[in-house]
Amino acid sequence: MTKTVDYEFQVEWADCDPAGIVFYPHYFRWFDTGTHHMMSLAGVGQRAQTEKFGFVGCVLVSAKSDFRRPVSFGDRLLHKVRVSEWTERSFTISHEMSKGGEVTARGTETRVCMARDANGAVRAIPIPDGFRKALVAVSE
Amino acid sequence: MTKTVDYEFQVEWADCDPAGIVFYPHYFRWFDTGTHHMMSLAGVGQRAQTEKFGFVGCVLVSAKSDFRRPVSFGDRLLHKVRVSEWTERSFTISHEMSKGGEVTARGTETRVCMARDANGAVRAIPIPDGFRKALVAVSE
Amino acid sequence: MTKTVDYEFQVEWADCDPAGIVFYPHYFRWFDTGTHHMMSLAGVGQRAQTEKFGFVGCVLVSAKSDFRRPVSFGDRLLHKVRVSEWTERSFTISHEMSKGGEVTARGTETRVCMARDANGAVRAIPIPDGFRKALVAVSE
Amino acid sequence: MTKTVDYEFQVEWADCDPAGIVFYPHYFRWFDTGTHHMMSLAGVGQRAQTEKFGFVGCVLVSAKSDFRRPVSFGDRLLHKVRVSEWTERSFTISHEMSKGGEVTARGTETRVCMARDANGAVRAIPIPDGFRKALVAVSE
Repeated sequence: MTKTVDYEFQVEWADCDPAGIVFYPHYFRWFDTGTHHMMSLAGVGQRAQTEKFGFVGCVLVSAKSDFRRPVSFGDRLLHKVRVSEWTERSFTISHEMSKGGEVTARGTETRVCMARDANGAVRAIPIPDGFRKALVAVSE
Repeated sequence: MTKTVDYEFQVEWADCDPAGIVFYPHYFRWFDTGTHHMMSLAGVGQRAQTEKFGFVGCVLVSAKSDFRRPVSFGDRLLHKVRVSEWTERSFTISHEMSKGGEVTARGTETRVCMARDANGAVRAIPIPDGFRKALVAVSE
Repeated sequence: MTKTVDYEFQVEWADCDPAGIVFYPHYFRWFDTGTHHMMSLAGVGQRAQTEKFGFVGCVLVSAKSDFRRPVSFGDRLLHKVRVSEWTERSFTISHEMSKGGEVTARGTETRVCMARDANGAVRAIPIPDGFRKALVAVSE
Repeated sequence: MTKTVDYEFQVEWADCDPAGIVFYPHYFRWFDTGTHHMMSLAGVGQRAQTEKFGFVGCVLVSAKSDFRRPVSFGDRLLHKVRVSEWTERSFTISHEMSKGGEVTARGTETRVCMARDANGAVRAIPIPDGFRKALVAVSE
């Protein structure tokens, strides 16, 4: 059984383009928001990342999405978020959006954890165990 | 020799997030804008698409990007756009962003041409020859 | 007693700028979204506007806001929306945002109803009675 | 004679809504960008604000705009920016947008200069003389 962090939201007028459908970069905004929701729910949101782990942030190294069905103003989307892959220094978040049970988009984000080293330079660090465990507890 | 449509622009305050770097969905906004610039330059911009080819639009089926270096408010980016692949019913646009000669992001968009059929339904159609030739002339 | 349409939402990472606070144009995006929520709740949302009243849309003639307190990622805002003024051809929507009982922003939008005339030109029309009554019922 | 900082830009697909016209919050994004351009041109851009004046930023206390004519994808806008008013602790920037010589929108932003006091609290400070003079030199 796969565990996901789920929530629903409505597609707004602000999200749509002159063709009357979602302007696709907004999907990536929703992906980012979903990742933040998952991290907050796991107790490792922005503040905890800074205070517990010394992160500057979890920065993107890549992102992608397929778009299967158009969505329009007023549609309600179900967003399912989970971490689907871990490496020593990166993690991949899978995003699925659906409308009335049909998938409208499926994508991933791959992120690294950035922190300041002794010289003040920002660089990717190995993913802290506590961070990984907190996310696994809510979403794998 | 590869031909690309090139233009420069500045990263704005509006594009950056609390980490002080570009909020990554804006890269996809820039990709979309670059594709529109390329199509306009080729004489097959939005108006021509409707009037000459009966398109409702060129809709995304997928998009992706790698992010190699952070960019911040005030940076100038060079955006290179070209069509890198054609199939009967889709085309893939390659996007490269660089700052001072170093690549900051590289991505693709794959799009299909949507038009109304005799019954008024919107569906993907084979890519019209004239559309393909116009884009090849500026960017392959 | 003033009646308002109220809803809560969370300020997202996507909404904030390098100063760590909301990038102010997003307030106007939220105003727009609030106006659409109010119109939907009143049964005169986008579809009804087109089908019942022949509107092309309710277009802005002006918008303004004061900003009283900074808000940041993770804050929850309460948005109160109501129509505060009617003229023959325009209406003004008042927006109040608050966080924990303290107002963070207060603004207005003034809109006109656009429709196509017999010659196909889009122009502002007198506000239909049914449209006005529907909004008054939920928010005045 | 009024001196303004002027520049042109194109309205993009990304800026327009299902009605086919600019989604109005983007006007405020352009206002913000214009203000940053003016400050950079005057040599008091983001970096100088921090280094010379200890600013955390120039934060909005209010913003407003009238919208006179619709603008659409592909339109070229001329943006004129200038400081139109100074008080001891705030300044007001006037923005005018026009298309082919006709004004499409006219608005203002009022901003205060925020800095950290001895206790680390962020608060509005009297506008430094050097900051005011630099802006007056380019735009009044």
